[in-house]
Amino acid sequence: MSEASLPVHAKDNPNVAADGAPSKNALKKAQKEAEKAAKKAAAKKADEEKRAAQQSQAAEDTAKDNYGTTLPPDVEFTELTSLNDEHIDKEVTVSVRVHNSRGQSAKLAFLMLREQGKTIQAVLAANDDTVSRQMIKWAMSINVNSYVEVSGIVKKPNPPVASATVSGLELHVTKIFLVSPASEVIPMQVKDAERPPPAAAEEGSVDAEGAPIVTLKTRLDNRVIDLQTECNQAILTISSGVEKLFCEYMWNSGSRKMNTPKLLGAATEGGSGVFEVSNYFGKSAYLAQSPQLYKQMLIAADCKSVFEVGPVFRAENSNSHRHLTEFTGLDFEMVFKRHYHEVLDFAEKLIVFIVNELNTRYTDEIAVIKKFFPRAGDFRIKDNKALRLKYFDGIKILRDAGVDTTEQDNYVTDLTTAQEKKLGQLIREKYDTDFYVLDEFPMVVRPFYTKPHPTDANLSNSYDFFMRGEEIMSGAQRINDAAELEASMRAKGVDPASPGFSDYVDAFRQGCKPHAGGGLGLNRIVQFFLGLDNVRQATPFPRDPQRLRP
Amino acid sequence: MSEASLPVHAKDNPNVAADGAPSKNALKKAQKEAEKAAKKAAAKKADEEKRAAQQSQAAEDTAKDNYGTTLPPDVEFTELTSLNDEHIDKEVTVSVRVHNSRGQSAKLAFLMLREQGKTIQAVLAANDDTVSRQMIKWAMSINVNSYVEVSGIVKKPNPPVASATVSGLELHVTKIFLVSPASEVIPMQVKDAERPPPAAAEEGSVDAEGAPIVTLKTRLDNRVIDLQTECNQAILTISSGVEKLFCEYMWNSGSRKMNTPKLLGAATEGGSGVFEVSNYFGKSAYLAQSPQLYKQMLIAADCKSVFEVGPVFRAENSNSHRHLTEFTGLDFEMVFKRHYHEVLDFAEKLIVFIVNELNTRYTDEIAVIKKFFPRAGDFRIKDNKALRLKYFDGIKILRDAGVDTTEQDNYVTDLTTAQEKKLGQLIREKYDTDFYVLDEFPMVVRPFYTKPHPTDANLSNSYDFFMRGEEIMSGAQRINDAAELEASMRAKGVDPASPGFSDYVDAFRQGCKPHAGGGLGLNRIVQFFLGLDNVRQATPFPRDPQRLRP
Repeated sequence: MSEASLPVHAKDNPNVAADGAPSKNALKKAQKEAEKAAKKAAAKKADEEKRAAQQSQAAEDTAKDNYGTTLPPDVEFTELTSLNDEHIDKEVTVSVRVHNSRGQSAKLAFLMLREQGKTIQAVLAANDDTVSRQMIKWAMSINVNSYVEVSGIVKKPNPPVASATVSGLELHVTKIFLVSPASEVIPMQVKDAERPPPAAAEEGSVDAEGAPIVTLKTRLDNRVIDLQTECNQAILTISSGVEKLFCEYMWNSGSRKMNTPKLLGAATEGGSGVFEVSNYFGKSAYLAQSPQLYKQMLIAADCKSVFEVGPVFRAENSNSHRHLTEFTGLDFEMVFKRHYHEVLDFAEKLIVFIVNELNTRYTDEIAVIKKFFPRAGDFRIKDNKALRLKYFDGIKILRDAGVDTTEQDNYVTDLTTAQEKKLGQLIREKYDTDFYVLDEFPMVVRPFYTKPHPTDANLSNSYDFFMRGEEIMSGAQRINDAAELEASMRAKGVDPASPGFSDYVDAFRQGCKPHAGGGLGLNRIVQFFLGLDNVRQATPFPRDPQRLRP
Repeated sequence: MSEASLPVHAKDNPNVAADGAPSKNALKKAQKEAEKAAKKAAAKKADEEKRAAQQSQAAEDTAKDNYGTTLPPDVEFTELTSLNDEHIDKEVTVSVRVHNSRGQSAKLAFLMLREQGKTIQAVLAANDDTVSRQMIKWAMSINVNSYVEVSGIVKKPNPPVASATVSGLELHVTKIFLVSPASEVIPMQVKDAERPPPAAAEEGSVDAEGAPIVTLKTRLDNRVIDLQTECNQAILTISSGVEKLFCEYMWNSGSRKMNTPKLLGAATEGGSGVFEVSNYFGKSAYLAQSPQLYKQMLIAADCKSVFEVGPVFRAENSNSHRHLTEFTGLDFEMVFKRHYHEVLDFAEKLIVFIVNELNTRYTDEIAVIKKFFPRAGDFRIKDNKALRLKYFDGIKILRDAGVDTTEQDNYVTDLTTAQEKKLGQLIREKYDTDFYVLDEFPMVVRPFYTKPHPTDANLSNSYDFFMRGEEIMSGAQRINDAAELEASMRAKGVDPASPGFSDYVDAFRQGCKPHAGGGLGLNRIVQFFLGLDNVRQATPFPRDPQRLRP
C-alpha cells in the first residue's frame, strides 16, 4: 500500500506559521502554551474516550477488547529491526511511536509506526469482527508521537512502502493500545529533524519541496525530539561504541580506569579558561581543564598505566564547529621503558583499532548516518596504520603546496585550523589516508609539562593526532623530574610553588618513571569519523558559550 | 638471608621529630624545604659520582659497566608478581623502587625492592668481578623510593625473607641502574602508610612497637606516596574492576553509555546543595547533583536503556565516613514493559554479578587488602541473590529488636544512618547476607520524580540497595507523564515552569515509556565490599568540605 501522508496536527496550532515552519518566537510561545494545551487535550480526550466508549457499547463494538488505554497483562515485543520474512503471516506486537497517521475512510486507515528512528507501515482495515470502525476512529484520534503497543499480522506489501525504513513488510493491525500520549502541540516534528540542517539556512525557510527547514539551533533547543531521528539514534550508538572500544583496548592492555577530581583547589592555568565554583564552603574551587596533572600523579604513585573517561571543562569563548565548553575526554597515561615512541605506537594502534572495529561492528548504524552525512563510512586508514610525520615535514607539505608557513617556520604559532584542514586534504591526496600523526612539535607551542627533544631544544617529544585534518588528540612525553619541571614552568611563566601546582611538582620529588600519554576528545572522534558537520551533532546535550540548556 | 633493617634517611632530616613521627608543621616545613634539599642533594650527588668515577678508575673498577645512571639501550622487565620457582638460577631484570637499603659491610649489602607495593630482597655481594666494592658503595647512596632497574640471579633464600611479599625468592644483583632519583627528604614513608590508621590516633603518636602512626589526614595530604602501598594499589585495581564489571553488565544488556552535561543552566534543587559556577560567560551555571533528569530525557528521546559513569557533585556539608562532595556515580535508566520490578530484578542481578566476579577475578588483591582491612573477602550474598524486603518490613525488624521507629512509623523521616547499620547487622544475623534491598519507600522521603505506589498513596515504587547495612544505591520508577509530574513537583514545592525544570517536564509531553533506574556510588561499593573504614580510602584523590587537594 502507498505511503501515508503526514499528519496535520501541527496545522491546528496557531503558533505555527502557515508554511509549516515554526519561527523562533512561535516556538517559545508554543512551548509555554503546551502545558495549557496538554491539559485541555487531556480533558477533551477523557471526554471523547468516555463518549466513544458509550457509543461503542451502543453500537455493539465487536473489537472493544482490542484497543484502548488498558494494557493486556502480558506482552512480548518484537523489535522493528529484527522483523524479517520469516515473520510473514505471523502476529507480532511492537512497542512504537505513532510517526504519522492517515484515515482513508471510516473502514481503512494507515499508521506509520516508529521505533528508535526505524519506521514500518500499519494498516487498519475494518472487518466488523477484530477491527471495528470504532477502533479505527479511536486509533486516528491518537496524537502523533504517542507511544502505542500494536499487534498485527506481518504481510509483504507490493510495491514496498518506500517511505518506511522497514519497507518490505507491513503490519495488518489486530490490536492497538495507548501507552503514553503525546501532546497535540509539538514544537518540532521528528520528520523535519530527519533532514540535515543546511549550513546557511534561516529559521522559517522551506526547502525545494516546500518542507520546513529546521536549523541546528532549533533542533538543539528541542533535543529530546531531535534525538528521536533514525540518524541521531545511530550517532548515539556510535558514540557509546567509541567509548566501549576505547575502554576495551585500555583494559585489555592491563591499564586501570581511574576517576580524578574535577573540583580543584586552585586554578592550574593562571585562571584564564577556567570555570570558578564560587561557593565551595567559603572558598573558591575550579573545574579541571583536563585530568593531565592527576594522571601524572597516579603514574608517580606507581600506576604503570591509567585511563579515564570524564568531562573536561573549558571556559574558552570559542564558537566553532568543533569546540564545546564541556566535552568527554578519553585520557590515558603510561610508563615506558626507553623511548616515548613506545607509547605513541600504542596510541596509534588504539585509533586503528577503534576505526576498524566501528566499521566491523556498526555497519548498520554507519549506513543510516550515511543517508544524512555522505562522508560516513568512507573514513580511510591506509594499510591499517597511522601515517606518522614529523611536524616540520607536515609544514613542508603545506609550504610546497603554496601555503604561507612563515609563522610556523619561525616558531611563532602552531598550525591554524585552516592549515590543519588543508594539510588533511593534501595528505589524503598524497598518502591516501584520513588518519595521520604529527610528531616533534616545537616546544614553544606546547605546555610546560612537555619533555623537550633530547638533541634539539626548539622541539619536544610531543604529538598530535588528526582525523580528516582535524585534531582529535594531543599528547607527549612528560617531564618526570621535579627540578627539570620547575625550570620548565618558570620558563613558561608558571610558578611551581603556587597552590595549584605544588602538590603536582612534589609528586615528582620521590622518583617517577618516564611516561607519556594523551587526551582524546570523544565527541570529535565521533564527529570526524562520521564526517558530521558539527561537534554538537555528536553530543547528546551540548554545552557552548551560548548554550546551557536543555 | 635475613630482613634488611629500615633506612635511616629520615633521621637526617631536621624536620622530623626524634621519635620518627612527622608533626603537621614539620611536614609543611619539610615540603617547602624539599626543593632546596633536592637541589643540594643533586649537586652533592653529581659531585660524589664524579669523584666515585675517578676513584673507580683509579681502583680499576671491574664492574663499572654494571651500574650508574646511563641505562643500557635495551631491556626486558620481569614483574615481581610473575616471579616463581621456574626463574631460579636465571637472570631477570626488574623495574622497581628502593624500598629500603642496608649496608652490612663494604662487601655486602641488602636492598628491599618494591614494585606496586610488592617487595623482594636483593643481595649485593662483592666478587671483584661483576660486583665491585665501588658498585656497592654507589648502590647504598641511592635514596629510598628512587626508581632503579636491577638485574640479578633469582635464588631461593633459606629461611624465606619474612618481611618481603615475595618472600620465597631473592635477587643476587648483577647490575643496578638509577632511573629516577627520589629526594633525600620524604614527607611520609611508604612503610608507615602500610599500617591502617587507628581511628582515634593523634598525629605524632607511636604504636606499640614504637613506629610512627600516620593519620588518615597525613596520608591523604601525601596521597601520591600513600597510594604506593601494596594495599592501596590493590584498592585501585578493585575500583577499576568494579567500574569494568558495571560497564560489562550494562553493555552486554544492550544498554548504551551516555555522557550527560555536568554544567546546567539552572539549579535543579532550589540552590541548596548545589555548586555554582560564577563565571559562565556572564551568567551562572550549576554543577549537576546527579544525571537523573538527563537520563530520563534520553529515555524520552527513545533510548531504551542508558548508563553513565561520571562525577556527581554535592555541596553538602557532610563530614562522615561515607560522604564526599564529588564522587563517581554509576547510573542507569531503562524502560520496562509492565512493572518496575523488571528493572529492580535487573539491578539486583547487577550487584550479584559485580560481587561474584570481584571474588573470582581479584582474589590476589582481596587477599592483600584483607591483611589491612580484615573484613575484605567476607562479603556474603546468600544463595547468589538479593534479599528483597518491603521498607516497612525492614522497619518491623528494627522495631522487633527494640529500636525506636516512631518517626518512620509516622512517615516523618527516612531511616537514619545508625538505623541502617543496625538493620544491616540484624539482617546478617537473621538472613545470613550482606546485600539487601528495601522496596516501597514512603513517598514523603523520595524526590518528586518518583512514581507513587499504584494503590497506597503514602508509598512509592522506589527502592534502596544496601551493602553491610549502608546505602549504595537509590532508585525508583519515575513519573513518565508531564501532567502527573507537574502535580508531583507542586506537591513538593518545586515549580515545574522554572528554568531548571521546564526542559525536563517538556520531555514528557511528547510521549515517554514507563521507566525506572538507579544511581550507584562507585566509591561506596568499593568501601563496603572491602569493608574499608572510610570512603576516602576508596577514592584516589577524595574531595570533602575540608579537602580540595592534592
